Amino acid sequence: MAPQLDPGDLVVRAQRGEPRAVARLISLVENAGPQLRDVAAALAPHTGRAQVVGLTGSPGVGKSTSTSALVGALRKQGKRVGVLAVDPSSPFSGGALLGDRVRMQEHATDDGVFIRSMATRGHLGGLAWSTPQALRVLDAAGCDVVLIETVGVGQSEIDVVSLADTTIVLLAPGMGDGVQAAKAGILEIADVFVVNKADRDGADQTVRDLKYMISLGDRRSPDGAAWTPPILKTVAARGEGVEDVVAAIDSHRDWIDRSGERDRRRLQRAESEIQAITLEQVRARLGDVGGSAALPELAKRVVAGELDPYRAADELIAAVGSG
Amino acid sequence: MAPQLDPGDLVVRAQRGEPRAVARLISLVENAGPQLRDVAAALAPHTGRAQVVGLTGSPGVGKSTSTSALVGALRKQGKRVGVLAVDPSSPFSGGALLGDRVRMQEHATDDGVFIRSMATRGHLGGLAWSTPQALRVLDAAGCDVVLIETVGVGQSEIDVVSLADTTIVLLAPGMGDGVQAAKAGILEIADVFVVNKADRDGADQTVRDLKYMISLGDRRSPDGAAWTPPILKTVAARGEGVEDVVAAIDSHRDWIDRSGERDRRRLQRAESEIQAITLEQVRARLGDVGGSAALPELAKRVVAGELDPYRAADELIAAVGSG
Repeated sequence: MAPQLDPGDLVVRAQRGEPRAVARLISLVENAGPQLRDVAAALAPHTGRAQVVGLTGSPGVGKSTSTSALVGALRKQGKRVGVLAVDPSSPFSGGALLGDRVRMQEHATDDGVFIRSMATRGHLGGLAWSTPQALRVLDAAGCDVVLIETVGVGQSEIDVVSLADTTIVLLAPGMGDGVQAAKAGILEIADVFVVNKADRDGADQTVRDLKYMISLGDRRSPDGAAWTPPILKTVAARGEGVEDVVAAIDSHRDWIDRSGERDRRRLQRAESEIQAITLEQVRARLGDVGGSAALPELAKRVVAGELDPYRAADELIAAVGSG
Repeated sequence: MAPQLDPGDLVVRAQRGEPRAVARLISLVENAGPQLRDVAAALAPHTGRAQVVGLTGSPGVGKSTSTSALVGALRKQGKRVGVLAVDPSSPFSGGALLGDRVRMQEHATDDGVFIRSMATRGHLGGLAWSTPQALRVLDAAGCDVVLIETVGVGQSEIDVVSLADTTIVLLAPGMGDGVQAAKAGILEIADVFVVNKADRDGADQTVRDLKYMISLGDRRSPDGAAWTPPILKTVAARGEGVEDVVAAIDSHRDWIDRSGERDRRRLQRAESEIQAITLEQVRARLGDVGGSAALPELAKRVVAGELDPYRAADELIAAVGSG
């Protein structure tokens, strides 16, 4: 067993860039153990600085290759980079081809890069729950940019994408991805489109499809400033076009700063997070209250017709509030 | 506009068997309007008597024909019958063939039968929410048996099935339903299996498949009494075998009475219902609390790093508890 460490100490050591402290903190928030609250409290004052970039797309579009290329480009700028892989097909999660894995390992030994694969096991919504906490750890550890890589299908992954200040949607030619993207609601969340594998047939058609779809939408921040997602072409495996993606991310960062969109997104995200934690804790307390016989007793009275379920719920809420 | 009626009055009139009072009460609980709590309170003392029978199966197995045949058989016994159709393909919901619709209409004019199609529109989990309330109405209205017809795929429909004291799973030959049933977890919830369209090829094979699957399971009540789901064959369109189904329902009712399984199921159901209402109300109050600026204020402090989301949740729960 590793010795129990004070969360405050761990945060200080994470800020110094000690990978083991970072890993330990993420494990603590992922496992949602008794120390979670102390960790969260210790992290809070050090969060809010990292630029959070989401990277999503269907399997096969080259997400992990693109993530790796982006990490390389950001490192060249001297930026400290965190990667959260919530993609079961990601080499970070250990699920991909050997070639990808090797490509990743170059970053794995770079002490300016923190890589963490988020476990998809556990209860439903587990990722939506643990990823924001892991993000806080990387943020507090001084990452300038945190890349969150996800497959981008399914609600929990869309929740994860919603953590990003800037969301990159990756597509590849000839996969019918344009249509898929529109279906999955991914079109609405994209701040930057990247057509990867742009040396393949059909890349220009994919770009045209996207342009048409974007022209149908209208995305404005509350003050009326508009952001039109750029459409970039890359061949991530050869590093082509990756600098342009980094430039687009920076350009979008400037826009969300100027337009107030960044604050709006972060406030909305914090609201969702607080609500989710609140509901989860109420649910947990319901269980505790149930364990203390209040719920079974109320259920008995409902079955006997002495009480209707709404009044029973009132009594339970009162018990939770005082619990 | 219909005049506002006192929920207590409506319940009295429903108990007298006035179809319009029953319909009005179900609308009130379905719409979850301000009168819902008064209705629930007025219903409570008159509930718990109806025998609740769930009828589920894939589209095409003949659920609506079987429901209609069962209603006929129960009416012959002089029983008052309620039908809740939560099946979009049901003729009760207006979605089926003309032949079925005509067959249903014979019951629609019978004042010993209440038929209600539950709206599948509205928010997620809407059916799981409104169906137990509608069931209470039919129960209080003096229905001896309430049949709940559902397609039996998807979580909300499984929730609905869990309302039943006795669940009939319907299959038809040659649809690969045996395997589908096992997949969907329907095997575990079946108290009675009915192979409908038993005049078709493959009926005996379906029965054999089911027997084999049942032999793999072991279903015992807490006191060790076992119930082995019978497998019956019907041709519902010609009324063949339907009396046997009614007998099996009665036999299962006797077993759940004797074994204590009925009480166990109803208590479990009441617990789930109270918990669901509690969580829903907490969620609603979170919205109210948010409207009163507590949530946005907490979110601001989290974004500013002054507060971690767990402590923010604590503050929100305190606000909800006192709300």
